[in-house]
Amino acid sequence: MISDQLIKAIIEKKSPIVVGLDPRLESIPLDILNHCFELYGETLKAAAESILIFNKGIIDAVYDLVPAVKPQIAFYEQYGVEGMAAYKATCEYAKSKGLIVVADIKRGDIGSTSKAYSIAHLGMTKVGNSYHKAFEADFATVNPYLGDDCMREFMEDVKTYDKGLFILVKTSNKTSGQLQDLEVEGGKVYNKVAQIVSNWNDAIVGDTGYSPIGAVVGATYPSELEDLRRQMPKAILLVPGYGAQGGSANDVVGAFNQDGLGALINSSRGIIFAFEGTNKAYGVAAREATLEMREAINGALEQVGKKYW
Amino acid sequence: MISDQLIKAIIEKKSPIVVGLDPRLESIPLDILNHCFELYGETLKAAAESILIFNKGIIDAVYDLVPAVKPQIAFYEQYGVEGMAAYKATCEYAKSKGLIVVADIKRGDIGSTSKAYSIAHLGMTKVGNSYHKAFEADFATVNPYLGDDCMREFMEDVKTYDKGLFILVKTSNKTSGQLQDLEVEGGKVYNKVAQIVSNWNDAIVGDTGYSPIGAVVGATYPSELEDLRRQMPKAILLVPGYGAQGGSANDVVGAFNQDGLGALINSSRGIIFAFEGTNKAYGVAAREATLEMREAINGALEQVGKKYW
Repeated sequence: MISDQLIKAIIEKKSPIVVGLDPRLESIPLDILNHCFELYGETLKAAAESILIFNKGIIDAVYDLVPAVKPQIAFYEQYGVEGMAAYKATCEYAKSKGLIVVADIKRGDIGSTSKAYSIAHLGMTKVGNSYHKAFEADFATVNPYLGDDCMREFMEDVKTYDKGLFILVKTSNKTSGQLQDLEVEGGKVYNKVAQIVSNWNDAIVGDTGYSPIGAVVGATYPSELEDLRRQMPKAILLVPGYGAQGGSANDVVGAFNQDGLGALINSSRGIIFAFEGTNKAYGVAAREATLEMREAINGALEQVGKKYW
Repeated sequence: MISDQLIKAIIEKKSPIVVGLDPRLESIPLDILNHCFELYGETLKAAAESILIFNKGIIDAVYDLVPAVKPQIAFYEQYGVEGMAAYKATCEYAKSKGLIVVADIKRGDIGSTSKAYSIAHLGMTKVGNSYHKAFEADFATVNPYLGDDCMREFMEDVKTYDKGLFILVKTSNKTSGQLQDLEVEGGKVYNKVAQIVSNWNDAIVGDTGYSPIGAVVGATYPSELEDLRRQMPKAILLVPGYGAQGGSANDVVGAFNQDGLGALINSSRGIIFAFEGTNKAYGVAAREATLEMREAINGALEQVGKKYW
């Protein structure tokens, strides 16, 4: 099961870290940009090619250090059809390097439309009697606002193709509380979503004790993180907000179970753009930043007795 | 302002209707499919070309009868990069026919990521010193689960490029109530989202009295529809769930203000696949279904004294 694969890769690489591939053209090294501008002019094609070259450099630099990467599709969608091609090629390249790919797509819609998103990112697309992969990821992030029938549509592909989901429970941004923290009977809105996740966890769980149905819980709300860790013991928590968004290693230890597992901490800018303001090559800086983050998190886990290695 | 354009087009065409362009390959006429399979084999390219040919036929058949079309991006995303090219070409073709395009994308994320989605669908993408349209729509649907700062990121492009949003308030699906109907202080969760929409409406409103920040409210919950109509008097309500999903003309009259305006009723399958089970050409059947729907809705509005023409 994909959740077992992820847990095993975390242990093997001593690294509960996912690198966010959120390329911003204005931060991509100039030599890459200029090379692509010379070939294609200042076009969407040039932007997409720059992103792909950059991503491959990042993946080459960190693939032996982390179990997974998480491309945020919005940063590709803004470069149009060409950007989507770069997204697809990034996912494929990451998989060719043995990485687990978390598609950060935050999709979610009514039944048949959710099914189409599921097919697009986790399943296979039927054309006549042939089957194709539209895009290919191992996990996808899903928005729960439409309720359970929207998530249910992903489950068939989760089971058929051994895939997983991370359902948005408590996000890392400032106004996340506006709806998510509203008090309802028996807790907060995010507790209701956590309950849905927990119900799915009871229905599908791997040998490691972790389910392919995980949850997104931001590092920027440490006390909610601990609360939600307890409420969803079998869920892997995907934790954004580390580093650039303000979360520290001490803030995220609450995302881990006592076995030291069950969380995947994301860093995007803090790793991929670590070279900014230095004289280092971007791959070298990304590798160093990843090693530092790994050391910081493992150190914090060891301090609280959550050693998993 | 785009909201004024929409309201004027509704009055001019006597038609508060948006046609949902949700192509399902298994429902596209065989002559189109076989033509594309002969050219490209059973590939994603063939699927995407079939969809584009089909969509152009639908648009040609209805563009003089309705103010707007609403492509649901999931149905294109499932055909990969090629599908996204068909999505883009569909939006462009609809605009060339004078139609307002509602991108049904239900995106929403933390700040900088929401900004990227906004750029992708409503704004312009900067590459070097050049600006490009990644995809082009007039309105985009947005998921509110992450809170107001996610929506705020779209506002700059709304103002700069004269665009609009439809924020998901109460969706048409069965389990929409699971989160949206939860009781919170002062109402339900969907009332909280409606309040956010209403606040934006006070900040930005056109000459017709309608704001470019609208709301999605399903036809399948008529009493909530009336309640939310009252709570957001300046919002245009985008109403899915008519026809195939079960909503009738009488179910949707509550979506309109006393002036007979302020709502845009969506039908997808009921129009674009109206030819199924008949001997009619798909364009002819779509045109007839649109005329029938227009008559049914205008008739129901006249009965309750909400004549806008």
